[in-house]
Amino acid sequence: MRKIETIIKPFKLDEIKEALGEIGIQGMTVSEVKGYGRQKGHKEIYRGAEYDVDFVPKLKIEIIAEASRVDQIVETIRNVANTGKIGDGKIFIIPVERAIRVRTGEEGYDAL
Amino acid sequence: MRKIETIIKPFKLDEIKEALGEIGIQGMTVSEVKGYGRQKGHKEIYRGAEYDVDFVPKLKIEIIAEASRVDQIVETIRNVANTGKIGDGKIFIIPVERAIRVRTGEEGYDAL
Amino acid sequence: MRKIETIIKPFKLDEIKEALGEIGIQGMTVSEVKGYGRQKGHKEIYRGAEYDVDFVPKLKIEIIAEASRVDQIVETIRNVANTGKIGDGKIFIIPVERAIRVRTGEEGYDAL
Ligand SMILES: Nc1ncnc2c1ncn2[C@@H]1O[C@H](COP(=O)(O)OP(=O)(O)OP(=O)(O)O)[C@@H](O)[C@H]1O
Ligand SMILES: Nc1ncnc2c1ncn2[C@@H]1O[C@H](COP(=O)(O)OP(=O)(O)OP(=O)(O)O)[C@@H](O)[C@H]1O
Ligand SMILES: Nc1ncnc2c1ncn2[C@@H]1O[C@H](COP(=O)(O)OP(=O)(O)OP(=O)(O)O)[C@@H](O)[C@H]1O
Ligand SMILES: [Mg+2]
Ligand SMILES: [Mg+2]
Ligand SMILES: [Mg+2]
Repeated sequence: MRKIETIIKPFKLDEIKEALGEIGIQGMTVSEVKGYGRQKGHKEIYRGAEYDVDFVPKLKIEIIAEASRVDQIVETIRNVANTGKIGDGKIFIIPVERAIRVRTGEEGYDAL
Repeated sequence: MRKIETIIKPFKLDEIKEALGEIGIQGMTVSEVKGYGRQKGHKEIYRGAEYDVDFVPKLKIEIIAEASRVDQIVETIRNVANTGKIGDGKIFIIPVERAIRVRTGEEGYDAL
Repeated sequence: MRKIETIIKPFKLDEIKEALGEIGIQGMTVSEVKGYGRQKGHKEIYRGAEYDVDFVPKLKIEIIAEASRVDQIVETIRNVANTGKIGDGKIFIIPVERAIRVRTGEEGYDAL
């Protein structure tokens, strides 16, 4: 089991949700973050405004999924989130040992 | 060492904090998130309002604890967070390699 | 590859960003959280006000970096974030299996 943690441009959320739904991903968690990558000196555009200070608003999406689904999820996110401009984001893959559904107590893939 | 990451209904926070305190858990981190699980088409109630769009407000609680405490923490969270209704949430267990207390430099279980 | 996840006092963000930049760290993600540690009964000061309820506003910083950089990053954060007062925060080290740059598809250290 893995956590796919991706930092994206906020306007891409709906498109990513839809594309992941089409490949059968049934759950995700989203939070508001700010961050920067390699272009600390350079400018990144957000809502038409230039941010040259380091922190740009982003969304973090977390998806817990079977290990065997990771490659497809990464491809799906990249296809949608890649605008070709700097700041498109990152994807990080993190091990997950267990998953439990609170309501039923189900564990493992049944809990996803 | 493990991270217990749980997504819960926001109104359950105080009760969970109290129940975890009773079993000796001394620290946690909380953030506001939004998300969805399996019932994307169905309706989930939040503060009396129906959300049928996909994202429902939730809280994410993160607890770093000894591996040997995980089962008890999971049980405690489930006992409190389980209302029997959809959307009660998830618990994910993630490996943690090290923990450090900033003020003292203590490491390991002493740092929790 | 590792995720260095640190919970700090909010006013320390700029100083940490600068100190990490000086050792060549080129990316980070920041989110607003609230939390508590061991002094649940005691008081912690935030912006001149006393918080004696359990949740104090903090920032969470996440840095994905090469495993070989972890010690230096931990030292750098501790040097800056340690005020000697309670509530200075925690550092947690979490395994990361893969990192991908969305724009280019680069993987591994090239993606950091
Ligand atoms: N090493 C890192 N650790 C944690 N978060 C990171 C890291 N690198 C980037 N991020 C997060 O990802 C967001 C987007 O990064 P970004 O896409 O600008 O990466 P980049 O490496 O600079 O690639 P690009 O050259 O395409 O801009 C940042 O705002 C930050 O939130
Ligand atoms: N696979 C997942 N990855 C990441 N976050 C998830 C995942 N599944 C659920 N979540 C998070 O947990 C929250 C609660 O999910 P929820 O309890 O509705 O799960 P469920 O599987 O639909 O179970 P139930 O049938 O009891 O509703 C979601 O709003 C989302 O934030
Ligand atoms: N075990 C834990 N799990 C998750 N988050 C924690 C844990 N312990 C602390 N935190 C987070 O770190 C923040 C700062 O904790 P704090 O520095 O007060 O730790 P402490 O162990 O009480 O050390 P000190 O004695 O120096 O205050 C908390 O507000 C919380 O967000
Ligand atoms: Mg960049
Ligand atoms: Mg559900
Ligand atoms: Mg404390």
